[in-house]
Amino acid sequence: MEFIVEIDKMKSIYRRSYLIDRSRHENDAEHSWHIATMALFLSEYANERDIDLMRVVKMLLIHDLVEIDAGDTFAYDAEGHKTKAEREEQAARRLFGLLPKEQGEESYRLWREFEEEATPEAKFAVAMDRLHPMLLNYFTQGAGWKENGVSSEQVLAYNRKIAEGSERLWQFAQNLIRDAVAKGYLRP
Amino acid sequence: MEFIVEIDKMKSIYRRSYLIDRSRHENDAEHSWHIATMALFLSEYANERDIDLMRVVKMLLIHDLVEIDAGDTFAYDAEGHKTKAEREEQAARRLFGLLPKEQGEESYRLWREFEEEATPEAKFAVAMDRLHPMLLNYFTQGAGWKENGVSSEQVLAYNRKIAEGSERLWQFAQNLIRDAVAKGYLRP
Repeated sequence: MEFIVEIDKMKSIYRRSYLIDRSRHENDAEHSWHIATMALFLSEYANERDIDLMRVVKMLLIHDLVEIDAGDTFAYDAEGHKTKAEREEQAARRLFGLLPKEQGEESYRLWREFEEEATPEAKFAVAMDRLHPMLLNYFTQGAGWKENGVSSEQVLAYNRKIAEGSERLWQFAQNLIRDAVAKGYLRP
Repeated sequence: MEFIVEIDKMKSIYRRSYLIDRSRHENDAEHSWHIATMALFLSEYANERDIDLMRVVKMLLIHDLVEIDAGDTFAYDAEGHKTKAEREEQAARRLFGLLPKEQGEESYRLWREFEEEATPEAKFAVAMDRLHPMLLNYFTQGAGWKENGVSSEQVLAYNRKIAEGSERLWQFAQNLIRDAVAKGYLRP
C-alpha cells in the first residue's frame, strides 16, 4: 500500500510532449497508460512472433516510476543523459524497495530488462515508448518539437531503435517524420 | 492509429478524486494507469486463485474509454446512473468501432465483461476500480468525500462489491473507512 500511494507522484511529473488538444503537457502516469494500451493493440507488429505481452505491459506500466526521484530527462538533453543512469538506479532501489521482497526484485528485474533493451519484449516496449511522443508531436503540428528546437535528424537518430522492436512501426514512424517535415511541423 | 489518437482524450476527463498531493483532480488516464498497476501487485489477494491477470489488466486499461463520449458519472450521482448504461453502450460502439474488426470485438467483449462483473477477472478488476478512489480519498484526509458530502454508509454500500473480487481487500477497505470516520475524514 505504501508503494501504491507513493506512485501517485507519477501524475505530477510532466514531460515535454503536449496532449493532442494542446491544453497542457502530458505527465508520466498518462504516458504510461497510453503506451501500455498501445501495446495491447499493436503487438501483432512486433518483429518477434509470440512475445509475452503481459511482460511488455508490466514493463510499460512501471518503467517510468524511477522518474519520481530522478525526474524526466528530455530525449534531446545530452547533459541530463550523462547522469541519468545513476540517478535512475538509485530511484529504482528506493521505490521497488517499498514492495514485498519478491515483488520488489521482480519489478527491479523488469525495469532493468526494459533499460537493457535486449529481449524481444523489452525491444517492443521501447518501441512503444519512442513511438508515442512522436504521435503526440505530429498530431499537435509539432508543438513539442518546435518548443525545443528539435530537428528531423535528431528525431530519426533517437527513434531509430523502434526498428529493433518493430520494423513495420519504424516504417510508419519514418513516413510520419517525412510528412512532419513536409508540413513544417519539424525542421529538416 | 485513429483509435490511439482518439483515446488521448481520456487525459482530459476529470474525476471527483484528488491526487494525493491535493494539487488537482485526477483524470481517467491516470486512474486507469494506477489501477492497472495496482492489479499487478495485489492479484495474490483475489478470491479466486489463478485469475488471468492479463485479462484483468486489459479490462482496467480500457474500461473507462467510454467516458470519452459519456463523461464521468460520479459514484454517488443517482440521476446520472439512470442514463449511464445507455450513454456508455453508445460510446463503446463508436470507440471500439475505430479498431480493426477483431480487436474492436474483443475490446467490446472485455468492456462488457467488466460491466457485468460476472467472471473472477471482472470481479477483481472492479475491486481495483473501487478501492483506488477510497485510497485517494483517505490519503487526502477525505478531500473528495467532503467536497461531495458523502457519508460512510454510502461508501460502505457502494464499495461492498470489492468483497466479490477480494475478501481480504474488502477487510482492508472497511478498516480504512472506520479509520476515516474516526479521524473525521468521512462523516458517519
